[in-house]
Amino acid sequence: MNEGTCVDDKAPVAELADRLVDGEVSTEHDVLAAQRTDEAYLTPSGWPLCSVYARSTADVVETMRWAARHRVPVVPRGAGTGLAGGALAGDGALVLSLERMMAVRELSVDDRLAVVEPGVITADLARAADERGLMYPVDPGSASRSTLGGNLATNAGGFRCFKYGVTRESVLGLEVVLADGRVVTTGHRTTKGVSGYDLTGLFVGSEGTLGVITGATLRLRSKAAGPRATVAACFPDAAAAARAPLELARAGLLPSFLELIDEVTLRAVRAWQPLDLPGDGEALLLAEFDGADAGGAAARMGQLCGTLDAAVTVTTDEEESERLLSVRRHALGALERMGRTMVEDFVVPRSRLGDMLAEIRRIAARHDVLIGTVAHAGDANLHPTLLFDRGEPEIPARVWAAADDMFRTALRLGGTLTGEHGIGTLKRRWLRDELGDDATDVHRTIKNALDPLGIMNPGKVL
Amino acid sequence: MNEGTCVDDKAPVAELADRLVDGEVSTEHDVLAAQRTDEAYLTPSGWPLCSVYARSTADVVETMRWAARHRVPVVPRGAGTGLAGGALAGDGALVLSLERMMAVRELSVDDRLAVVEPGVITADLARAADERGLMYPVDPGSASRSTLGGNLATNAGGFRCFKYGVTRESVLGLEVVLADGRVVTTGHRTTKGVSGYDLTGLFVGSEGTLGVITGATLRLRSKAAGPRATVAACFPDAAAAARAPLELARAGLLPSFLELIDEVTLRAVRAWQPLDLPGDGEALLLAEFDGADAGGAAARMGQLCGTLDAAVTVTTDEEESERLLSVRRHALGALERMGRTMVEDFVVPRSRLGDMLAEIRRIAARHDVLIGTVAHAGDANLHPTLLFDRGEPEIPARVWAAADDMFRTALRLGGTLTGEHGIGTLKRRWLRDELGDDATDVHRTIKNALDPLGIMNPGKVL
Repeated sequence: MNEGTCVDDKAPVAELADRLVDGEVSTEHDVLAAQRTDEAYLTPSGWPLCSVYARSTADVVETMRWAARHRVPVVPRGAGTGLAGGALAGDGALVLSLERMMAVRELSVDDRLAVVEPGVITADLARAADERGLMYPVDPGSASRSTLGGNLATNAGGFRCFKYGVTRESVLGLEVVLADGRVVTTGHRTTKGVSGYDLTGLFVGSEGTLGVITGATLRLRSKAAGPRATVAACFPDAAAAARAPLELARAGLLPSFLELIDEVTLRAVRAWQPLDLPGDGEALLLAEFDGADAGGAAARMGQLCGTLDAAVTVTTDEEESERLLSVRRHALGALERMGRTMVEDFVVPRSRLGDMLAEIRRIAARHDVLIGTVAHAGDANLHPTLLFDRGEPEIPARVWAAADDMFRTALRLGGTLTGEHGIGTLKRRWLRDELGDDATDVHRTIKNALDPLGIMNPGKVL
Repeated sequence: MNEGTCVDDKAPVAELADRLVDGEVSTEHDVLAAQRTDEAYLTPSGWPLCSVYARSTADVVETMRWAARHRVPVVPRGAGTGLAGGALAGDGALVLSLERMMAVRELSVDDRLAVVEPGVITADLARAADERGLMYPVDPGSASRSTLGGNLATNAGGFRCFKYGVTRESVLGLEVVLADGRVVTTGHRTTKGVSGYDLTGLFVGSEGTLGVITGATLRLRSKAAGPRATVAACFPDAAAAARAPLELARAGLLPSFLELIDEVTLRAVRAWQPLDLPGDGEALLLAEFDGADAGGAAARMGQLCGTLDAAVTVTTDEEESERLLSVRRHALGALERMGRTMVEDFVVPRSRLGDMLAEIRRIAARHDVLIGTVAHAGDANLHPTLLFDRGEPEIPARVWAAADDMFRTALRLGGTLTGEHGIGTLKRRWLRDELGDDATDVHRTIKNALDPLGIMNPGKVL
């Protein structure tokens, strides 16, 4: 650690500490060590200057004013569960932690909304909504640990997007502190509302590069009625399983959960624990239906998968459902038993899911990397996990080459670089390939207009 | 008409005509007269310089380059069905008509999307999707005449937003020509995708002030299965009817159509034609359910409205449904029989629908204006129609005063100035009241960054 950085800048950090209302500043090594990375397992160059724990919007305002005055780069941070390096904080940066702003300010049943601070844990809001007969549907894999602020910054997705959309579809409005410390509110308390530009959408998913989200008005929905119904369909291979989502869509079936587990991954789960699946097919499609017609829809999906050569179980028994759905939950853990992992995230047009799975197999062979893939199959959002030896000091070149090959292939098939994890540090080098030069320039124009000093999470996204 | 404007500028207009690939330029009086207004019935000051009918993106590029070179303001235009004066074209402006760019470039069943040009009529896309077993759900009142480009520019809504959202929720990506003639594509062919900033959302609803939309990739959905079911519930008054949507939401009922018709409006329809409604209650709530559980949901709504003092009809008979739903379709026509009309559009939080209806009655009395209100009741999006004498040369001061009173009241109740019509020219003066100074300045910052010469639809929105 270069402790000199902290010493040199002690004076301004003390000035900042004086200005905070309820927040705290830390320059402790352990704090900075924990807060300079996220779950992308990338290492930033150098060490942050300090870490601020904000407790209020006023703290964030003071922090941004101070940072603007001293030209200090600011890295906003939630729980650090990000997978794209959006929260990496390197040399001389100020880590702005929103974790301690954790109040649910309001939860209105009649207006079907919650007003939250950014540090609220995703699952806590889901639970609070559920207790009032409502639903907050956004359900990222890290929901029990991730903050809503982090979900907003990355426009997080999860298991229920096919039916309920990503985070953006559940945001009515925001409170944002700009790079110069001004506070703006965007959006509405109403579901409909088209006054002015969609600043809400602009800040959601901007990964801390345009401002700091200090509050959000989130849309809640009616809790789906009746018991859920689960379908597990074992297909001969992933190619066969990949055809089913298209047929489901043609039949008008809209599961709230639709996950594909490929051969490599299913083999890894089977090697870890005994599975009681229908048949011994090599690839699995798991679905859950909610709502009044859940049972009927699940039965129709079961029939349909049967005509596509799958062995099928349909159940409304909660225990059996849990057991079946746990196969998906154990997927990453099963792969992690086999080595170090790099989890990827991209999307292709629905019709190209099977093509992309075939390409991944070719890419795995070409670069000699074992790749296990799960996919949010309804949206063709794939998560290939690239495996490598635990002994490797860093991500090996052939793994990067395989990732590069996958990203370019996804773009060639008409897809996009990320469905829910964000661009962060990890995918920055590919973004221009997706956006093109002119749209990249428009991004830069907007970034420069809102953050002329370039202090908001520099080096991320653009 | 100030015909001098055209003569003075003949040279540059001829230059423009030479540069267009397939498009045409017109300076004819009749063309300009038809294209300088929309359905807000406001009169712009002065006359436009010329009108361009673009047939391709290349025409739009050439037009924008020419306009930038000569500092000519550009007013993009679809069918002119806008209700907020967003397409008013005054002194020296160039009207850029996209009506002739009317190709559906692609309609993919498997990818569930359509790639369209901006001049496609909304209902034509809905029909094309329907023929392929899909649904384009956005259904503004003007769907048979409005263009998708206009819908995109205003982020149009309509009758099915409570279940399916406004236009934004059906847009995957755009092609946009910027103020300097550069062409950018935004968004994806995938439903999910979080790469970079949400430029798609930024351009949708920006009412032609940030760029010209020349193409869109629109999301299609599965067509709802089974027969629809309709509910008509006659309540003693609008206050009683306004309580029902909250109870429906609590019961998890999600109609695809939920319209409230107040006492003034229902009286006007009854005075025009005999209605066979359940009971003689003064206010009406009409609902339609689609999907597999439509009949069951309609029956539950019927029971629920019965407990709220309504007389109820529930039907799955198509002819009877049509007859009931036609009451809503005849609402504006019935009011128009009574005088000239000014149709308004704003939204309040769901819980304040009844309060806002009561406020409208007070405002009508205070300013001596007859006001009949219909509402997209699920979203509490109200459309009060203000009536005045056909002999008035322009909108009378007391009508403006009543409108002003309504807008301020809606904002005070936590609402927003527009749910689907846009800000345009009509509501520009109130926008800062809603956004606040800092958010207004952010709008201006973005506008200046993307349109530094200020030639994109100046005088609208901001």
